[in-house]
Amino acid sequence: MADDRSLAQRLLDGDRRALARAISLVEDDDPAGWEIVREVYPRTGQAAVAGITGAPGAGKSTLISALVRNRREAGRSVAVLSIDPTSPFTQGALLGDRIRLTEHFLDKGVFIRSMANRGALGGLSEATLQAALLMDAAGRDDVLVETVGVGQADVDVIDHADTVVLVLVPGSGDSIQALKAGIMEIPDIIVVNKADHPLAETMVREIRGVLSLAPQGGWRVPIVKTEAARGEGVDTLVEKLVEHRAHIEAEGTLSERRRRNLRNEVLALAAARLRRRLEAGLEEDPHFQTLIAEVVERRLDPATAAGRVLEREGVESA
Amino acid sequence: MADDRSLAQRLLDGDRRALARAISLVEDDDPAGWEIVREVYPRTGQAAVAGITGAPGAGKSTLISALVRNRREAGRSVAVLSIDPTSPFTQGALLGDRIRLTEHFLDKGVFIRSMANRGALGGLSEATLQAALLMDAAGRDDVLVETVGVGQADVDVIDHADTVVLVLVPGSGDSIQALKAGIMEIPDIIVVNKADHPLAETMVREIRGVLSLAPQGGWRVPIVKTEAARGEGVDTLVEKLVEHRAHIEAEGTLSERRRRNLRNEVLALAAARLRRRLEAGLEEDPHFQTLIAEVVERRLDPATAAGRVLEREGVESA
Repeated sequence: MADDRSLAQRLLDGDRRALARAISLVEDDDPAGWEIVREVYPRTGQAAVAGITGAPGAGKSTLISALVRNRREAGRSVAVLSIDPTSPFTQGALLGDRIRLTEHFLDKGVFIRSMANRGALGGLSEATLQAALLMDAAGRDDVLVETVGVGQADVDVIDHADTVVLVLVPGSGDSIQALKAGIMEIPDIIVVNKADHPLAETMVREIRGVLSLAPQGGWRVPIVKTEAARGEGVDTLVEKLVEHRAHIEAEGTLSERRRRNLRNEVLALAAARLRRRLEAGLEEDPHFQTLIAEVVERRLDPATAAGRVLEREGVESA
Repeated sequence: MADDRSLAQRLLDGDRRALARAISLVEDDDPAGWEIVREVYPRTGQAAVAGITGAPGAGKSTLISALVRNRREAGRSVAVLSIDPTSPFTQGALLGDRIRLTEHFLDKGVFIRSMANRGALGGLSEATLQAALLMDAAGRDDVLVETVGVGQADVDVIDHADTVVLVLVPGSGDSIQALKAGIMEIPDIIVVNKADHPLAETMVREIRGVLSLAPQGGWRVPIVKTEAARGEGVDTLVEKLVEHRAHIEAEGTLSERRRRNLRNEVLALAAARLRRRLEAGLEEDPHFQTLIAEVVERRLDPATAAGRVLEREGVESA
């Protein structure tokens, strides 16, 4: 049966296949993908977008799976966007009896999508944002974005989340140090997963210590202990997610945060395009190869070479 | 007494104050700084540049201090460039009896300089490269660059090192996970510091496991156990640093690595300048403010807004 509705229209009507197709288009950097985002953008801004970040092995996927179950039981539709290359969501691998992602794969109220890190972080984070917007436009109540956050990494990728959840496990020494040193930004919620580990309490105390030194805003960062594989603590995490969103809405910081994120995203998109155009043009350019040879032979310094590249591109005066 | 030599000439003659001044100029993005780099660049490429990376608290500074002592005893001149905001080198703080940075501060054969992370990572990594080149041109035999590497972070900052040393301590669970997951690149040398910790051996075994899964090139990544505060293991680390450099020189990968790094640096410098010019121009631009307002009100999507910004800048056709 033919469907006369456009891809964008079907997406807005909640069609899962249309959503999947549209995401593939933006992932492939197809102009048709960007066109769809343009078309559906007025319908975005409704979903609660949470970024779930943490080192590989922290149990983010198991936690997300438990969150999805909880949200589905509350009657909400969910989309998961994973950009952690080690995630079972990304790899399509199932962890057998530990988590049952299959139950989600069969549930029409759950849309799961992963995006591979294709080297170019700029490119990936552009595509991620577009994918999250498409999920939002498709009427998903909750969008969960899974990223690998170790240290200051991926900050731009989770920039468009309303709430950032950092997942730690006993043994996340480097993340604690990075938090303590102010190199990693304080998230909105901290989860200590695998909470029955003998060192979990020590870790909670350490985190409390770090938080007590951090500048206190209106929101007191809660530490939630979970045992994601058994679903323990997930209710509390959901409560905190809801509380955080209510808090930033009441305070007016939700719109402020979104304004700042959208501004940064426009700049990042523009800069990434500029850089891509620059690199694409140079790849085959014999003049650029000559410039690099001169730099290698120490006859021309890198900054001067960069200036010549820009001159040649016509974006900098000689 | 007047000195008729130019700042660049004095730097090439090994004058410490000229080196310090020149670095300040590039740090301040002063055109005179870039001019000096241009002038002295033909004299670079002699120093052995090692990047020492690891989470805050891994003991990088103590290790560097021990390395400096070792290198000085071998009659080599050393420069340290720290871009870890938590480093005692950066903070100017001394750790009292634990490490005696003071001995280095008084030694003319040691030049120590820190650069603050000023938010714009692009800007910092540009300035870092220039500073390392200046240290090289000033005739320092060894240039040690200290960075905070957690996960994939800072990859570009240590891109211009000939040898990358990752410093881990028992408890660096996140880094191990990131290495294992292939998110963090395998360094050239791995140091397990605080080697008398009861869990040090477990950590060494874990690292061996990760390395055994990594693709094997011509260089077998050594794991060096150190107790930096007491100077233990530092001789072995120096041996491995020398071996690695000899290896990449013999193999021809030193010049290949430098070519690749210099190419990336030229591109990064060009892209960073483009972005800076873009952002600076937009800061006060009422048209940009209007665009962002439309994006916030969901009337214009971020990608289209980015395209309009580029059109207006004249770098993209409408």
